[in-house]
Amino acid sequence: MTSHPLRLPPGRVDLTEIDPGSTALFDGGKKDAKAALFAMGEELSDLQERLFAQGRSGATRRLLLVLQGMDTSGKGGVLKHTVGLVDPQGVRITSFKAPTEEERHHDFLWRIRRALPEAGYLGVFDRSHYEDVLIGRVRELADPEEIERRYTAINDFERELVDDGTTVVKCMLHISPDQQRERLLRRLDKPSKHWKYNPGDIDERGQWPRYREAYEVALERTNTEHAPWFVIPSDHKWYRNLMVGRLLLDVLRGLQLEWPEADFDVEVERKRLLDESPIA
Amino acid sequence: MTSHPLRLPPGRVDLTEIDPGSTALFDGGKKDAKAALFAMGEELSDLQERLFAQGRSGATRRLLLVLQGMDTSGKGGVLKHTVGLVDPQGVRITSFKAPTEEERHHDFLWRIRRALPEAGYLGVFDRSHYEDVLIGRVRELADPEEIERRYTAINDFERELVDDGTTVVKCMLHISPDQQRERLLRRLDKPSKHWKYNPGDIDERGQWPRYREAYEVALERTNTEHAPWFVIPSDHKWYRNLMVGRLLLDVLRGLQLEWPEADFDVEVERKRLLDESPIA
Repeated sequence: MTSHPLRLPPGRVDLTEIDPGSTALFDGGKKDAKAALFAMGEELSDLQERLFAQGRSGATRRLLLVLQGMDTSGKGGVLKHTVGLVDPQGVRITSFKAPTEEERHHDFLWRIRRALPEAGYLGVFDRSHYEDVLIGRVRELADPEEIERRYTAINDFERELVDDGTTVVKCMLHISPDQQRERLLRRLDKPSKHWKYNPGDIDERGQWPRYREAYEVALERTNTEHAPWFVIPSDHKWYRNLMVGRLLLDVLRGLQLEWPEADFDVEVERKRLLDESPIA
Repeated sequence: MTSHPLRLPPGRVDLTEIDPGSTALFDGGKKDAKAALFAMGEELSDLQERLFAQGRSGATRRLLLVLQGMDTSGKGGVLKHTVGLVDPQGVRITSFKAPTEEERHHDFLWRIRRALPEAGYLGVFDRSHYEDVLIGRVRELADPEEIERRYTAINDFERELVDDGTTVVKCMLHISPDQQRERLLRRLDKPSKHWKYNPGDIDERGQWPRYREAYEVALERTNTEHAPWFVIPSDHKWYRNLMVGRLLLDVLRGLQLEWPEADFDVEVERKRLLDESPIA
């Protein structure tokens, strides 16, 4: 995946140089993109089922999709429209909120480890351990030495996951402040969206430049070969959903997932079924 | 829901009197049924999102769909095709396997309680606490007094859930032994289905009459007003998926879910967004 067009190149990160409104990798508009995403469903489902089948048959491979981004960047939209294309049976979604009292009494990775997908599953993190170096840094929820320690802790943790058979795909959903404002205003316009709105979101928005800086540092420090970052231009929802779908598809294809071989004799079993006495 | 056409009437249960091949409640064939299920997606999604929104806003309502049935009856198919219609973000699926060592050291409801959906969620149990009075009874995994105790324990437990805001919908996916044989043979025919096949399934199948009896007793004993059973004719997959979809839709409609009201002043928030200084 190191040569993927959405892969963030290693080195210093300047998010102002990445256009959140880009649609460069798709030659078409909203309608075409929706159709293209839908058309992807069958292959995505097939590959996810192979992964799941392998998990049931003793293989340890699993996939972890990490979604990060500012409010309204569309983590929920990706869950609904992209992750929603595959069988929910094989998906484990965890939405990380502000840590609970119990969680705060443990290392920041404690709750993350508890939410890791089992073998064969597609795990999705809606927010993640990255919050602990994002809001953690901006809101000074931990002292600078602790924040500093976390970048290394994250890299070590992700290395461990990869060594244990997990493919880690980290997506930063990249939106512009203008697009966020539009989306927040739209939430205010629709009573059916009020529940998604929180006045505190505007306070966070007021810290936009500091969040951008925190993202830039986090992306730079944790953009490893084993767990690379992908920056998804997300001002266009249809482009964002399609790009994450394509990325998932590329990753799953790369795993070269075969159906597990039968660990029983197919002919013997067939005969057992055909020869049985009638069931009343 | 007590007058629902799929609701199992209270009293003695004789499963041989319920036709697993019935398609009586749908006036059409496979293709129409698939279209009808798909068409249901939008309303189902909308209602599920309202439930979820209410959960985020402090309401305690939640939904628990319990799926039980013999092997190949289609618990997985319902998850994929029916539950798969709604946003996976609001769904919590738990597949119960043979209990682990740790689970066996607790009361049979211990692991069930840990898997209950949070407020606002649609929880789905693929197998459930009913296994403890089904395979538990047939395979004599507990002594008769303990099995006897469990029916009451289940009713008390489900009463508690309902009192706490959970709507409990229990579906028995009803198939015929002939249909099961066909499905097992089909799994043997396709290498992509071998992972779903387990030679032990035929041993369980050999106990079909005893399982039927165990189901009949369990259904009769736990078919309460607060947590009724629905028997879904499941020899036709398309009918089964559609009937569970309709049932979910009926249940969700019955909850009369409104969007939560804003707990902030919409105009104040709009002004904050429109008046803010530009973000660099």
